[in-house]
This record gives sequence, structure tokens and C-alpha cells, in this order.
Amino acid sequence: MQFEGKNAIREAIRSKMTINKILVDQIYASRKDEIISLARQNKIRVEFVPKSALERKSTTSHHQGYIAEAVDFAYTPLEELLSEKNSKPLVVLLDGIEDPHNFGAIIRSCECAGVDAIVIPKNRACQVNDTVIRTSTGAIANVKIAQVTNLKEAIDYFKNKGLWIFAAETGGKNIYQTNLDLPIAVVIGSEGKGVKPSIIEKCDGVITLPLEGKVNSLNASVACALTIFEILRQRKFK
Amino acid sequence: MQFEGKNAIREAIRSKMTINKILVDQIYASRKDEIISLARQNKIRVEFVPKSALERKSTTSHHQGYIAEAVDFAYTPLEELLSEKNSKPLVVLLDGIEDPHNFGAIIRSCECAGVDAIVIPKNRACQVNDTVIRTSTGAIANVKIAQVTNLKEAIDYFKNKGLWIFAAETGGKNIYQTNLDLPIAVVIGSEGKGVKPSIIEKCDGVITLPLEGKVNSLNASVACALTIFEILRQRKFK
Repeated sequence: MQFEGKNAIREAIRSKMTINKILVDQIYASRKDEIISLARQNKIRVEFVPKSALERKSTTSHHQGYIAEAVDFAYTPLEELLSEKNSKPLVVLLDGIEDPHNFGAIIRSCECAGVDAIVIPKNRACQVNDTVIRTSTGAIANVKIAQVTNLKEAIDYFKNKGLWIFAAETGGKNIYQTNLDLPIAVVIGSEGKGVKPSIIEKCDGVITLPLEGKVNSLNASVACALTIFEILRQRKFK
Repeated sequence: MQFEGKNAIREAIRSKMTINKILVDQIYASRKDEIISLARQNKIRVEFVPKSALERKSTTSHHQGYIAEAVDFAYTPLEELLSEKNSKPLVVLLDGIEDPHNFGAIIRSCECAGVDAIVIPKNRACQVNDTVIRTSTGAIANVKIAQVTNLKEAIDYFKNKGLWIFAAETGGKNIYQTNLDLPIAVVIGSEGKGVKPSIIEKCDGVITLPLEGKVNSLNASVACALTIFEILRQRKFK
């Protein structure tokens, strides 16, 4: 995995990614430099190289003179997501989020809501990449993420663990009138299509945010935040 | 105001912007074309021009062969935001949101929550532009937006109209334990700095979303959505 440009590298460090080294344009070697100081503070090797080497290595052409080589993001195995200590876990299953900004924003909100883990499908969905990490603004360091081949198997797994599975989708029960003070895995649908019917079938229920407007479509990451914070509210402040 | 490229023009039409004409690369004149059909359906003039004319007119270099000339977005005067029929209005004041994606996302969430109006400062804040309109996915057609020179004067105006003014900011009263079933104007802070202390001083109270994580910072548009939907919940589903 590679991070290019100051912002991406700053966020990768903040996100506690394991960075092997940072390649820096040699013209920056002698000046005071934010990324170089950050690297020193975090004991990351810095290698000064000619600009041409960065150009060859860059896949984005936005390296600004900095490319970090990092170990790929470490997904957590499904079996290690839940802690025995937590009797009322909250897990978020993403049914095919495609936009890295949405995925990053979801990770950020999940961290703020104290969500235990996020599960994503391996195929036809955005995986953790540099944009996701940057958009999560460091939150990804504190949220476990599992990657599964089949979201339905993950649902079975959590059912066996005693969790209630809810799909956040239109046409269900008013979320504010549903008891969510339970161990829960909530499925959030993709941007265009929502939660797949075959997934909804496997859920214990569908919870719906009542909307007032005419356009009636929330951004996927906003819908996710509203759902998980309502669960949090019911658990802590009802 | 000008919209460039298919997506931006599609959203401008959906957002009911007044479009004077759409300039289209003449090589598209003879083929079946989404933008040209949309223009016909909405009775918008189409003018076929050489690519070089589009190149000269473009400010983004992403015109893809299409530039729409539109009337500037019509802000609503402050005095026309509130309707006499609505005894419990909900107004959102944005204290310096800078990112057009955040502003567009806020408009989208406000529309879904049935917010009556949004007020933005004229200076040092993102104004309604093509990115905002695109990100709002059509919602901007249904939300009144006022532009004011001074947010404090707007606060005084709403106070005189009998609204309670709350700042959504850290360090205040738990939002879930505050009665929000009232006529309300809520101030949402900017991305980096939150609500300005001088604005907080003028508010009747500060409401805070209790967070669980370690990073403890929600995206501004997510914080706005959580705040207005909690007000909606208290009004309708308590």
C-alpha cells in the first residue's frame, strides 16, 4: 500500500499504519519539513531520492515530493471482532458501499459512536485504501474492520453469537419506535441500491429513519451515522 | 453561474435552477444524447457550438462538451424565511462551513429532516456554487437559503421571532437530555473551528452530542444531521 502527498501521509501516520519508509524528494533534504519531522517522531525511515524516482513510483501524480510505502491495512478476522467483555456489541455491516469518501466517513462516525466493528464484503465494495484512510481522519486506527467473502455468512455468524440483525432501509419499522437496546448488527445499504433483498430476508427486522422532505434520500454515510447514534442514544440516554 | 459537464448540468436541472441555455459540442448534434433530451423536456434552449468555444468558456476544463449558463442561485431574504403557518420552525445557521461537499451534504440532510431554512454568512464561508448544488442531489430546490452579512444580527432576528437559539458544540448540555421540542435556530460550527465564541455568547444554550470514541470529532455535515434529526425525533416521536 502506498500513500502519496502530504495529507495522505500525515493521515496514514495518524492512523497508525505500519510505514516501512517514506521517499522524499531530495531537494527537501536540507529544509525544515513537516513530513520529515513527523517521520522522525514516529521512527519511520526517510529516504531522499531524485524527483524522477518519485515520478516513476507515483500512481496518482499528486505525490508533491512524498511517497510512503506501507504495509497493507490489517483486516481483523471475523472471529476476532467481538470481545467477551462486551455483552451488548454493536456491529455495522456494509452491504456494498462503493465510494471511498462514504466509507471513510462511516468509519469516522462509527469510531465516534463506539461501534465495535465494521464488516465489508470482499467483492463489489470499496476496500480500505488511501482515500478511505485519509477520509477517516485517524479513526480507522480504533475500529476493527473485517473483510468477508459472503455477507450472509457473517449474518449467520453474528446470529449465532446472539446478536439481532437489523437492516437500515426504507419501508420498515420506525427506528425511534423500535427497541434497539440489544446486541445488534445493523446492515447499511449501498449508495444507489440500499440493502439487497436477499440480505433483508436474513435480517430479524428492518428499521427506517422517518424523513420529512420531498427528495427523501440521505447520503449513505449520514444514514449510517443517524442509525448508529440512535442505537447509542437508546442504550445510554433513554 | 455556469455548470460544466453532464453530472453538474443534470443536477442543476433537477435542482430547478433557471438555465438560460446549454452550449453543446456540435459533434453531439446528430446523436441521441441524455443532456439534450433533458433540456428538451425542460424547455431549455440548446446551442451547438464548436469545441473551441467551449474550451474558451470553460473554467474547470471538465466540460465534457457541455456548459450550461444559468441564473445565479436565488437566495431568500432573511425576512421571508419563516412562514406564519409554521408555529415551530427549525432553522439551521452555518457558522462558516468552508467545504462545498459539506455544505451540499448539509442541504441534503436538512431537506430530509424538513428544516425550514438555512442561513449562511456572506463572508468567509462557502456560498452556493456548482459543487454545492451537485452534492445536494436536488435537495436545494426545496430548502430556502438566506445569505447574511452578520450571523449575530440573524440570531437577534430569530430571537425576536420567538425562536430559541442553540449552538451545537462540545462542552454543552447533552442533546438527548435537552428539551428541543421548541421553535429553534441551531448554529452548526465550521469544519476546523466549531462555533465561534462570540456566536456562542449570543445563544440561549449549547447542545452537545455525547461521543464514545477516542478521535472524538464528527464531520461537520454528520454533526449537523445528527443534531437536526434529534430535534425532529423529539418533536415527532418522543
